[in-house]
Amino acid sequence: MKQLVVKPGNVFSASVPEAGWSLCAPHFQEQHNKHFESLFAIGSGSLNLRAALPEGLADDPQNVTYMRMPGNVTLEKFKPAKSKWGTYVPGFTDRHPLLNEEMVNLPFPLGCVIEANGERLDMERSTVRAFAYWLDLRDGVVHRTFEWQLARGVVLRVGIHMYVHLVQRHIAWQQFAIEAVRGAATVRLTPFLDGDVRTNGYDHWQTCTPAGTPHGALSMQVRTHGGKDAVVLAQLQGLPRWQVRTGARAVHLSATARVTAGAPLVCTKHIAIATTLDGPQPSRIAQEALAKALRAGDAPLYLEQRLAWAALWSRMDVQIDGDAATQLALRGAMYHLVRANPRTPHAGIDPKMNCGDAYWGRIFWDTEMFVAPFFVYALPELARPLAEFRHVTLAGARQRAAAEGYCGARYPWESDMQGNENCPSFQYGDHEVHISSDVALGQWHYVCATGDTQYLAARAAEIIIEVARYWVTRVEYLPGSPHAHILCVMGPDEYMHAADDNAYTNYLAREVLAVAAEIVNDACGNAALAAVMKKLRVAPAEVRAWRTLAKNILVPYDAKRKLYLQSTDFENKAPVDFKKFWRDRSKCFGTQVSQERLYRVRALKQADVLMMMQLFCTRFTDEQVRAALDFYEPCTTHDSSLSVSTHAMIAARLGDQRKAWDYFKRARAIDFMPDTFTAAEGIHAANAGALWQCVMFGFLGLQPAYLTETLTLTPRLPAAWRAVCCSVMWHGARVALAVHKSYVEVTPDRALCVCINGVTKRCPAGTATRFD
Amino acid sequence: MKQLVVKPGNVFSASVPEAGWSLCAPHFQEQHNKHFESLFAIGSGSLNLRAALPEGLADDPQNVTYMRMPGNVTLEKFKPAKSKWGTYVPGFTDRHPLLNEEMVNLPFPLGCVIEANGERLDMERSTVRAFAYWLDLRDGVVHRTFEWQLARGVVLRVGIHMYVHLVQRHIAWQQFAIEAVRGAATVRLTPFLDGDVRTNGYDHWQTCTPAGTPHGALSMQVRTHGGKDAVVLAQLQGLPRWQVRTGARAVHLSATARVTAGAPLVCTKHIAIATTLDGPQPSRIAQEALAKALRAGDAPLYLEQRLAWAALWSRMDVQIDGDAATQLALRGAMYHLVRANPRTPHAGIDPKMNCGDAYWGRIFWDTEMFVAPFFVYALPELARPLAEFRHVTLAGARQRAAAEGYCGARYPWESDMQGNENCPSFQYGDHEVHISSDVALGQWHYVCATGDTQYLAARAAEIIIEVARYWVTRVEYLPGSPHAHILCVMGPDEYMHAADDNAYTNYLAREVLAVAAEIVNDACGNAALAAVMKKLRVAPAEVRAWRTLAKNILVPYDAKRKLYLQSTDFENKAPVDFKKFWRDRSKCFGTQVSQERLYRVRALKQADVLMMMQLFCTRFTDEQVRAALDFYEPCTTHDSSLSVSTHAMIAARLGDQRKAWDYFKRARAIDFMPDTFTAAEGIHAANAGALWQCVMFGFLGLQPAYLTETLTLTPRLPAAWRAVCCSVMWHGARVALAVHKSYVEVTPDRALCVCINGVTKRCPAGTATRFD
Repeated sequence: MKQLVVKPGNVFSASVPEAGWSLCAPHFQEQHNKHFESLFAIGSGSLNLRAALPEGLADDPQNVTYMRMPGNVTLEKFKPAKSKWGTYVPGFTDRHPLLNEEMVNLPFPLGCVIEANGERLDMERSTVRAFAYWLDLRDGVVHRTFEWQLARGVVLRVGIHMYVHLVQRHIAWQQFAIEAVRGAATVRLTPFLDGDVRTNGYDHWQTCTPAGTPHGALSMQVRTHGGKDAVVLAQLQGLPRWQVRTGARAVHLSATARVTAGAPLVCTKHIAIATTLDGPQPSRIAQEALAKALRAGDAPLYLEQRLAWAALWSRMDVQIDGDAATQLALRGAMYHLVRANPRTPHAGIDPKMNCGDAYWGRIFWDTEMFVAPFFVYALPELARPLAEFRHVTLAGARQRAAAEGYCGARYPWESDMQGNENCPSFQYGDHEVHISSDVALGQWHYVCATGDTQYLAARAAEIIIEVARYWVTRVEYLPGSPHAHILCVMGPDEYMHAADDNAYTNYLAREVLAVAAEIVNDACGNAALAAVMKKLRVAPAEVRAWRTLAKNILVPYDAKRKLYLQSTDFENKAPVDFKKFWRDRSKCFGTQVSQERLYRVRALKQADVLMMMQLFCTRFTDEQVRAALDFYEPCTTHDSSLSVSTHAMIAARLGDQRKAWDYFKRARAIDFMPDTFTAAEGIHAANAGALWQCVMFGFLGLQPAYLTETLTLTPRLPAAWRAVCCSVMWHGARVALAVHKSYVEVTPDRALCVCINGVTKRCPAGTATRFD
Repeated sequence: MKQLVVKPGNVFSASVPEAGWSLCAPHFQEQHNKHFESLFAIGSGSLNLRAALPEGLADDPQNVTYMRMPGNVTLEKFKPAKSKWGTYVPGFTDRHPLLNEEMVNLPFPLGCVIEANGERLDMERSTVRAFAYWLDLRDGVVHRTFEWQLARGVVLRVGIHMYVHLVQRHIAWQQFAIEAVRGAATVRLTPFLDGDVRTNGYDHWQTCTPAGTPHGALSMQVRTHGGKDAVVLAQLQGLPRWQVRTGARAVHLSATARVTAGAPLVCTKHIAIATTLDGPQPSRIAQEALAKALRAGDAPLYLEQRLAWAALWSRMDVQIDGDAATQLALRGAMYHLVRANPRTPHAGIDPKMNCGDAYWGRIFWDTEMFVAPFFVYALPELARPLAEFRHVTLAGARQRAAAEGYCGARYPWESDMQGNENCPSFQYGDHEVHISSDVALGQWHYVCATGDTQYLAARAAEIIIEVARYWVTRVEYLPGSPHAHILCVMGPDEYMHAADDNAYTNYLAREVLAVAAEIVNDACGNAALAAVMKKLRVAPAEVRAWRTLAKNILVPYDAKRKLYLQSTDFENKAPVDFKKFWRDRSKCFGTQVSQERLYRVRALKQADVLMMMQLFCTRFTDEQVRAALDFYEPCTTHDSSLSVSTHAMIAARLGDQRKAWDYFKRARAIDFMPDTFTAAEGIHAANAGALWQCVMFGFLGLQPAYLTETLTLTPRLPAAWRAVCCSVMWHGARVALAVHKSYVEVTPDRALCVCINGVTKRCPAGTATRFD
């Protein structure tokens, strides 16, 4: 990284995009504005802001009420809009009349109308040159710099910079720097707060109270229909006195300055946002946070931000030598994973990474299966709250199980912060029962990778055992069958909505039962665990029943073809003529057929059996994996963003470099490549996590910790890659890895055994051990 | 019937309930008020009014806005309310934001507040004696008579009478007759129109314009959001001058009279309702209708009503000797069938008989399978518009088929008047594909029973052929199977939401294909039919394909057990422990288990295979029927009101008199027995039609006309019945039947062959032929 330049006053005057570290919007395009709002989203985890243009666009109302209906969100077409203001505090939710509990879009705090010589800045209309617009991944700062050409040859240089503070997590900071390049101008700034916003078309406010002072203070208090409060404060600096205009749901300040050569206007806006999640007096909390940030001063405040991000990057960065595009995409993914992580067990990362309305801020299986592994191996202290969220919501999962007539815990497909089911469509909410196993496996993954036995006893054991108990009561015994069955489920493939004995579901249920039994076994020599067993009244007979059932649940397999069947009824589905029904391959298959056809044909939305095989890669032979790939790939549509990454890893495992690379490129193109614009409604969280998994599990061949005690890699780098340098956390040790085409160097910070390409060596601490 | 008494002035002064012809509410019970509003619903088919109390009840607002969500209507709990004003014109629909197109509840026209000596009449609070409240089935008049005890010993006799005119079909008529029994009173009447009503909690009005005059005229014009107009007019008579009070959505008149011994107050309210369905100027149409009714005078107007109903009863009545309860229930059912029949192909009879919001005025399979047979055999001229409705909506069914990638016509599960699918829940709307066959069979039934070859050529042939074409493209061919399959459907049993090869669905598809081929065959000697074939471009190869497919579609059958399987996957469903999950047998099973369990266990909502066997009773052996009954009955919950009647008929066919009677009693108890109160949301249309079917198809053993050319009966009367006297229409002939325990007398109005208990005789016209 280059030397950090921080000048007092105009903090970012020298900023330019840094290669390898900057996601860039090369020019302003209205049709991609929403994509970049998400791609450039800034946040501290607890506060997430879409990077909406502060000055706004013409004809772009944010207060349009409409009814978003329940439906298939993958295939949903969202209302076209130029922009979407988005201010999200994960866990701050309220009831939507049709869609259940959702994360509420808070008042827009970033607003600032900019006028010069009577002309209003508007990216669609103003004449702009030397435009640069980027997110710096090193520090999470969004920059926009350009020359604004006014009438009569006047040219201003404008810099707009903003970030959310990673340490002072209530704080967002903005700067508007305007200097005269040619001529002079009277510049009028109108910073504002606007509470007239919607979440999925719904107005959540019971009350909205805006206020402002001539000294540059802005405030807005909102109360949801459910009685929760949020407070937005802002303090303007750089202009002495402001005119205040207060509306019903907005408050504007206005002030004017003369900008001439050598006399720039530099105006900062410190923003503080707090909610009832922070305490009973969010107003006081926001005030204190704002005062602290103001006391710090712009440069020190930013330095703290920069250092906090640098500390994370030093631990999580994965350097890819030979592939700049993947390098940037992967860093973009990791940036957003860290940015969105709410760092509390009372919230989570939604499938759009807390920077859009589309997935309502709810927690899906994406967390355990796609997002959490990155944290587990890179930043385990940030994996912990994600795992702990499932303990916070265990009571909800227990109630759900009881309400449906089962024992134990049944996790919701779309979880709110209390563990209630919020999915309004039964085929997912009722049938995607694999979620409970996903949750349990996520707990086990965290425990196995970190070796955190304290967490096992305090949290994970209870969850895993309660899910095992659910399965005991959820299985069915059919007359004449020697097996236990799990009927009428939706597996990961959401295009088969009511399958019997889905292999993925059943395999994971077996695994949970086996792990639960193993944990009980381990409790013999562990007082904390033994206490948990006592509390849960785990009896030996129950454990025997788990062990029996773990063997007894049918995982449909055709030994002749060495083929795991997605479900016992899979081959009763009708073959589908993709040529006839999937004419436009640029769009989802699912948008081109009726749902009633979709639900009865052999068209997979996403990897299903393959995902099971990837998760438990050591348990299946290459022959079995190849049989599954050959059988399912031709009928897999990859309509889900969760699909291509699994295929990339499976292909890598089979040594099919070309196929692995093709699928990986498709995964990379979701959100993070300069020529695709897929993030309008938010960043695809699962894919972001999966990009990291493709590199680590796929191309480095890292085996998950629940499959092996020994850190094990089997690298198969893509052709263009010369080397990958990174580190992983393994049982509490940090292990630096330098994976080259022909050799691997391993440097743990604590001596441990490592297995590379089947060769196991004990690697001493602090020095590189080379595997050829 | 007794001599008709019509006195001028007070038309119904001598009315008392007539045994065998009056549905009675023995006393006023607030908790059953909604039931009686439906049970006493009055109508002309085109105008249907719930019999809400004109004077209203305290604390009973009708303008409560709420969101009724899409869901399982069978298991839905409706908002408790004391009453539900309901004014319905079938076909007059507008869009509900969540529930799609629905029949709109029009302004309440019946209102009239009654006060005497300052006390307001309220059935919950006033002191009332000698209360009688009944619907006279002979003429469709609702009567309420009682003595109202006021303070200081004053007693008034009150009679409130109302009907909707069966001939002057826009007209409703009310009379308020108040006489002094003891003392005298100042009586104040406040008749009103109130447009502040909701349909399923939704306010459909764009505008509502009420008006009134001192001369007793009331009017209200409403316009829906969709731009459709309805006009309600009323004219008061009996008091000279009125005070007018006009509100935003209501208009009240008020006038006072002194009621003393010998000086009663008799006030009539003539109401006319017209809509844009009647023409572009509904206001003019309503005015003309009102003027005509007023010109007629009360007694002649009523006489016309009485005679119109008498004419119908003389043709449709079924007299049951020996069972007064069934006699009354059956007449109640027939009354409502006739009352609700809109007599136009542009509307239909919804499952709640157009007297409630619950089923949105949409047309389901209930029409063909349950409701229409009564009309086909009793009043075929009223069956015709019900059949023709499916031709009016054929364009919609064709569009649906095309949109889903099929040929031909695919009818909607919940049809609006254009044939669009309105079902908001996919498991019904997408999967209950049997509806298209039901429609086609309904067409064929009408044609076979009436011999109406003109209709066959003009309407039915096109429908049947287009449905056949749909099936050709809807079937699937699976690798390795010699059969054609229909996958992922919901059969009549709505507790199995995605079955493969449902026997009912597949059997009916075969039937439609065979009938279509037969029709083409018949076209050779029929120019009109031949023209249809030409128009539809029916090619010989296509017909051969229908014939082949009719044999090829799998109807799952286990020859060893002689058991038709409900679907090929039926035995993959889990056995269910009813003892554990169905604790409260007074409530639906479906309300006591989670839907996710419901959809995977062997619990039937209603008859499925048995319904197929009943519809095609001659095609299955007693042994097969018994095997099916033995297999399915123990797991049938009868949660649907459509179930018990089929079981009654099946049991009757098997000669199990006791079981047939038990099931029949359960069917009869739906809506029409004095101790059950099931009609709150409307009359169960399918059950009403099924009661008639139980008698005719079940206990008389009438074979449907699509199964036999010859009128064929195999009577098996219930033990208590001495005889059944009725007539049926058969190929245009009216055939009077007197079915006694030991013999049958048949008197056709045209010579024809009749088969009773396997003995076929040619019966001459006009004289009784006896079968012993």
